Amino acid sequence: MAITIIGLGPGSASLLTREAWDILSSSQKVYFRTLEHPCIPDLPEHIERMSFDYIYNRAESFEQVFSDIVNELLSLGENEDVVYAVPGHPFIAESSVTLLVKEAEKKNIPVRIVAGLSYVELCLTAVQVDGIEGLQLFDAIELEQQYYPSVNPDFPLLIGQVHCNLLAGELITVLTRVYPENHLVYLIHSAGNTDQVVESVLLDEIDLSKQINHLTTLYLPPITEVSSLAGLAETVAVICSPEADFVLPDEQKLVTDFSTISNKTISAIEQKDDDEICHNLGELLHQIVLHAEISSSDGGFKLSNVIAHINSKLESIHNQIGADKNN
Amino acid sequence: MAITIIGLGPGSASLLTREAWDILSSSQKVYFRTLEHPCIPDLPEHIERMSFDYIYNRAESFEQVFSDIVNELLSLGENEDVVYAVPGHPFIAESSVTLLVKEAEKKNIPVRIVAGLSYVELCLTAVQVDGIEGLQLFDAIELEQQYYPSVNPDFPLLIGQVHCNLLAGELITVLTRVYPENHLVYLIHSAGNTDQVVESVLLDEIDLSKQINHLTTLYLPPITEVSSLAGLAETVAVICSPEADFVLPDEQKLVTDFSTISNKTISAIEQKDDDEICHNLGELLHQIVLHAEISSSDGGFKLSNVIAHINSKLESIHNQIGADKNN
Repeated sequence: MAITIIGLGPGSASLLTREAWDILSSSQKVYFRTLEHPCIPDLPEHIERMSFDYIYNRAESFEQVFSDIVNELLSLGENEDVVYAVPGHPFIAESSVTLLVKEAEKKNIPVRIVAGLSYVELCLTAVQVDGIEGLQLFDAIELEQQYYPSVNPDFPLLIGQVHCNLLAGELITVLTRVYPENHLVYLIHSAGNTDQVVESVLLDEIDLSKQINHLTTLYLPPITEVSSLAGLAETVAVICSPEADFVLPDEQKLVTDFSTISNKTISAIEQKDDDEICHNLGELLHQIVLHAEISSSDGGFKLSNVIAHINSKLESIHNQIGADKNN
Repeated sequence: MAITIIGLGPGSASLLTREAWDILSSSQKVYFRTLEHPCIPDLPEHIERMSFDYIYNRAESFEQVFSDIVNELLSLGENEDVVYAVPGHPFIAESSVTLLVKEAEKKNIPVRIVAGLSYVELCLTAVQVDGIEGLQLFDAIELEQQYYPSVNPDFPLLIGQVHCNLLAGELITVLTRVYPENHLVYLIHSAGNTDQVVESVLLDEIDLSKQINHLTTLYLPPITEVSSLAGLAETVAVICSPEADFVLPDEQKLVTDFSTISNKTISAIEQKDDDEICHNLGELLHQIVLHAEISSSDGGFKLSNVIAHINSKLESIHNQIGADKNN
């Protein structure tokens, strides 16, 4: 037998694709991950609406919820054709689907995915930004669990499922590690629905919004000044490009520059001069990027190799310390 | 009068939303950016199909195309209600829409956006990856114009509109500045349509594909080892976090470490030992990140400030040299 997974889109039944509507309409019974979705009342009456909402009430973690749902669907799918419907698009913010597809493959149960509109399109419309220009998509809870957020501030950022003020507060802590506290951002509530609200607020005040709910998304426009390592690497690459007519420094000059900047940095640290430290660390970063630029143009190591090398060293030292402590 | 902009979705008419179908069906005349879209033959026969394909044939640049289309729509919109239909979603990879919305606002012509499914959902389905885990969206031509690509290799990357082998070849040059040449990537052709093909290929061989066409998207899974500065900053932040029980180095230790690493780096450069240079540049990068971590935890400068500072300095020197040359 087979499992058909349908994306219900982000709002009313008019946002369903015609394909999704046709399949739902011709089904006698549909399993909904949750019945808390605005399109449900408008679906054809004859559909028997099953739901997994009861699992949310009894489970102790989201992992447990998804694994219970998947097990139930798989055991159904072994005996009958199953239609499973989820909010939005099955492959955007739907952990139950990723897991279901993986497990169904192991059991040789065929799976068909029927796409749905995601909240991404509606949020882009709400803030009138084209998503192809480097948009980054994150889940609020994933990002909140980081100390330093894995985002590039030079490109637009959409953070889904900012479902409560507490979570918004925790996002402030993480995001201000990179963005200025007074960066102007947008809270989008109920994107694309008749009650859509777009609030423009300062980043460090997003947790004061009175409208945050389970349909809230946070949009951060890029920072005005280039602030990512990739952006700096691009600037250096442009300067070093043949078009720029720049004479690459020879080895002696590289050593002299490097040594001068090192000494300045050390002296700034000794004098506790924060502005000078920031400035000289930047000069040093430039030297690192320049070395990697010269090396990689020549088929040698890349900047990403430099990072991967030190990161893996730090991680293994850190893990070793953790292991020693636990012994 | 008003302009309604409709997203036609990424393929057959069954992928249209019901809302888009209803508006199209009740329209006498629709302006299509292009009639080269698989859903057009299946739209109701009574619709008078206008198109801007003729502008592509006469214009000298894409900018010219979009500006001509927008001017035409604005002048129509001043006298009648206009329905303008574009492939996919109006706010994903549709320069004509961003421009139209901006210009219509100036002329006080109301604009309504009717969302469409974009190729993003269908590509995520094709590679069975959930988009909320840090997906980055770029346009092939935008990325190809960079020397150093503004991408984070630790997260999934979707590059739209890889429409010919030449462009694929240029993407290899840019992307291998960050990714290994033999990184396994996916070319997705005609995502979601009956003739969908997903090819898994090595990054440096994508231009050998025989199937690249105007509906080709490139998907790059993340690199296995953490290779972004944000990833390194997260590792350092975890090590420095209160939970990790790590004793922050005092100023004297910072200076000593820094000085030792600087000397090692200089000696590696002098000995032309590439592995040692790569290794020591990493150690140095660690020191920069550590300084910024300590400073920003204390309310001082952030790592993004360090980057912004040096980048803006380099850009102004570079622009000055350019200006001097032109005088």
